[in-house]
Amino acid sequence: MIKLKRILVPTDFSAYSEEAMTYACAFAEQFKAELHVVHVLQDLVGVVPDPGVAFPPPGDYMGELQTSAEKALLQIPAPEWAAKNTVVRATRQGPPFLEIVRYAKELEIDLIVLGTHGRGGLAHVLLGSVAERVVRKAPCPVLTVRPGEHEFVMP
Amino acid sequence: MIKLKRILVPTDFSAYSEEAMTYACAFAEQFKAELHVVHVLQDLVGVVPDPGVAFPPPGDYMGELQTSAEKALLQIPAPEWAAKNTVVRATRQGPPFLEIVRYAKELEIDLIVLGTHGRGGLAHVLLGSVAERVVRKAPCPVLTVRPGEHEFVMP
Repeated sequence: MIKLKRILVPTDFSAYSEEAMTYACAFAEQFKAELHVVHVLQDLVGVVPDPGVAFPPPGDYMGELQTSAEKALLQIPAPEWAAKNTVVRATRQGPPFLEIVRYAKELEIDLIVLGTHGRGGLAHVLLGSVAERVVRKAPCPVLTVRPGEHEFVMP
Repeated sequence: MIKLKRILVPTDFSAYSEEAMTYACAFAEQFKAELHVVHVLQDLVGVVPDPGVAFPPPGDYMGELQTSAEKALLQIPAPEWAAKNTVVRATRQGPPFLEIVRYAKELEIDLIVLGTHGRGGLAHVLLGSVAERVVRKAPCPVLTVRPGEHEFVMP
């Protein structure tokens, strides 16, 4: 019988990860698994400074981003849910798909729950590609969740 | 709270779908969901007859394939498991990814569990592309499972 001890749900704090969060929480509850909520801060390599900005961001820019991400993470999932279940929150820095796969390997994650965009828009292509790469490289099964699935239009 | 009432697991009777089946069964048990096991018979459109064969296959060729698929389906998942849970078995005919997505829509499936190849080989590309398309087009979340995940090598 399959045992899910550790479930990983990456979040980018967007609506796209909310639906995934709902599934991750349901699965964590059902299997009494630890829920790992991870936010990946993209590092600044390859980010071109804005032409209007004379200097690169100060040295603690990533540090500030991280502090603000850690604060935001404390609300996900909702504290009431977290109080009744085991939640591990973490931030990582690097290319999102790589950090997600790496985290899953290091922490021996049994299931990754991943939000992915619906159709249309450049954002779809971007997050779609993260999801695709995670599906290809993850050391464990991956559940992909699109927002607004199972939506029914009233007649 | 998420309710999974109907779980779909497509099978091509290969080892690649076995691991997916294990997960599908575990999830069906845990959520007390109906397990739909579906085999898609690829239709013969586009299949070029072998140069040595003078005639196209007789008219009941697909019928025979279907009968043999239905017989094989009766063993998946194992009858002992099926006796204690609700299992629906079905065959469809057409392009696999399309039939899987269509079945999920028609039967209001809540979760698709899909086996996918490991690395290497042409087969990887083929089944990989089925998985990718299902992930993109499915009306519900998709769990992709690779065989041999979480394998540990003894020191």
